[in-house]
Amino acid sequence: MAQIYDRVALIGLGLIAGSMALAMRRSGLAGEITGYARSAETRKVAAEIGLVDRVCDSAAEAVKGADLVVLCVPVGAMGNVAAEIGPYLQTGATVSDVGSVKRAVIDAVGPHIPDGVHFIPAHPLAGTEKSGPTSGFAELFDGRWCLIVPVEGADVAAIQRLRDLWVGMGAQVDEMEADHHDLVLAVTSHAPHLIAYTMVGVADDLSRVTDTEVVNYSAAGFRDFTRIAASDPTMWRDVFLNNKDATLEILGRFTEELFALQRAIRTGDGDHLFDYFTRTRAIRRGIIEAGQDTDVADFGRVKK
Amino acid sequence: MAQIYDRVALIGLGLIAGSMALAMRRSGLAGEITGYARSAETRKVAAEIGLVDRVCDSAAEAVKGADLVVLCVPVGAMGNVAAEIGPYLQTGATVSDVGSVKRAVIDAVGPHIPDGVHFIPAHPLAGTEKSGPTSGFAELFDGRWCLIVPVEGADVAAIQRLRDLWVGMGAQVDEMEADHHDLVLAVTSHAPHLIAYTMVGVADDLSRVTDTEVVNYSAAGFRDFTRIAASDPTMWRDVFLNNKDATLEILGRFTEELFALQRAIRTGDGDHLFDYFTRTRAIRRGIIEAGQDTDVADFGRVKK
Repeated sequence: MAQIYDRVALIGLGLIAGSMALAMRRSGLAGEITGYARSAETRKVAAEIGLVDRVCDSAAEAVKGADLVVLCVPVGAMGNVAAEIGPYLQTGATVSDVGSVKRAVIDAVGPHIPDGVHFIPAHPLAGTEKSGPTSGFAELFDGRWCLIVPVEGADVAAIQRLRDLWVGMGAQVDEMEADHHDLVLAVTSHAPHLIAYTMVGVADDLSRVTDTEVVNYSAAGFRDFTRIAASDPTMWRDVFLNNKDATLEILGRFTEELFALQRAIRTGDGDHLFDYFTRTRAIRRGIIEAGQDTDVADFGRVKK
Repeated sequence: MAQIYDRVALIGLGLIAGSMALAMRRSGLAGEITGYARSAETRKVAAEIGLVDRVCDSAAEAVKGADLVVLCVPVGAMGNVAAEIGPYLQTGATVSDVGSVKRAVIDAVGPHIPDGVHFIPAHPLAGTEKSGPTSGFAELFDGRWCLIVPVEGADVAAIQRLRDLWVGMGAQVDEMEADHHDLVLAVTSHAPHLIAYTMVGVADDLSRVTDTEVVNYSAAGFRDFTRIAASDPTMWRDVFLNNKDATLEILGRFTEELFALQRAIRTGDGDHLFDYFTRTRAIRRGIIEAGQDTDVADFGRVKK
């Protein structure tokens, strides 16, 4: 594939940035990839494993001469990083991000983007429960979706170039408005994460069931929740604080529905339960048909 | 491995029974395996694929001459099946089951077990989201736990023989009292399933987010929930109706905790969220160290 950007700067060197670096390299999409992380330890590891072409000692240094800068830090840190790099951005460059929340990022980052620099927020819907500079892999985005959330008046050519990059990294691309993005993600990601964290915390807290029992007998379903609840705490704290309204709205709907099912259990309304449980199977089928999950039993983790 | 039972009758021919048949055959644990399922279609498929040695046209016929009978039907059907086979059970035989709830099964099945027949309830903590006669595989129980829940005065030698069978099928075995079993499973399985079903139902119901959006963008976490919510609706209806008290107790604790986290989001209490999300990582580590889940990112379903 042809090179799309001459120099890409990745700010933050965790799972997403690392996977981007490896995916860009896989297809030769970037001339040079620079990187910066706030933690000296992360920079050291990234340099040792050659995650990017050049690890820099400051965000300002990393973005100098870059025609694409991607902010890959927790949502709550985006504003500060943007303020720091703003003065060093090259005219004509594009600034993007990979944050799980878009409205708050636009509000925090937008004001720091100088005239002549394109700001095109994005969000790849891919990840694992792992984090840190060694957690990335080139195939993370293959077949997954990346949502581009252009701000008003964004440059069409610059958007297309960023789309090409994501397609080159294996993703499918769609565009979406910021508030709608935040609502959709509250459903497909933010509420499920909070629910999983909650259930795992409850299990850990119960005095009448030991931790050993929870751990040994987790294969009956619970272990699926613990994978999600092992995700990066800083990232997720920031997601919830920055997508407050949509998350609380979905959680409100969730609680309402949960109460209805609890009442069905209490009153012995088996038909209500059966109908509900039958309907949810269809969504799973849709996800498999759309290529967004494996149809192999138990995600294929069962040794056969 | 040596043969443990001369003739094993499996009543119900779904995921668990099928996996038991294949696991017993793998190690030569049973002389003959008979099977019966209420659905003629299931019996036909089971016979075609040779799931058991002999598919019978009635439960009574299947249990004749068996020294082990295992009830592998939904929890709500156990009582009727026990009433049906009671008169045909051979003296000295053992009747067991694989139900996800134990107190209700003991109450429903116990009265139908004649004198001279051992009744030893059990519950293998293993499964997938698949169901039906073709869903079983010999490795399902490898490394998983099977809980034996002996009733008062149960024969020690008969218990040991059933333990040997489960160990022979690859499982680790522990014994537990019925009510405690039902509480532990409410935490590790029943509440998580209801929560997953609820979240998937909510996503399906939202008018402001399309089903296509839910399906395409599910890789951000939601798809883990849909696997659980694709489980057999009849089985799960019966679980909730028959483990009402423990499930409602755990759901009550869950809701309480969820409200506390929602309040933290609303008030912007990032420390509360961060601490909670950090604590839940430890449980995941425990599960991986106990060999109950894979440490590979995303359950290993990511193509690398």
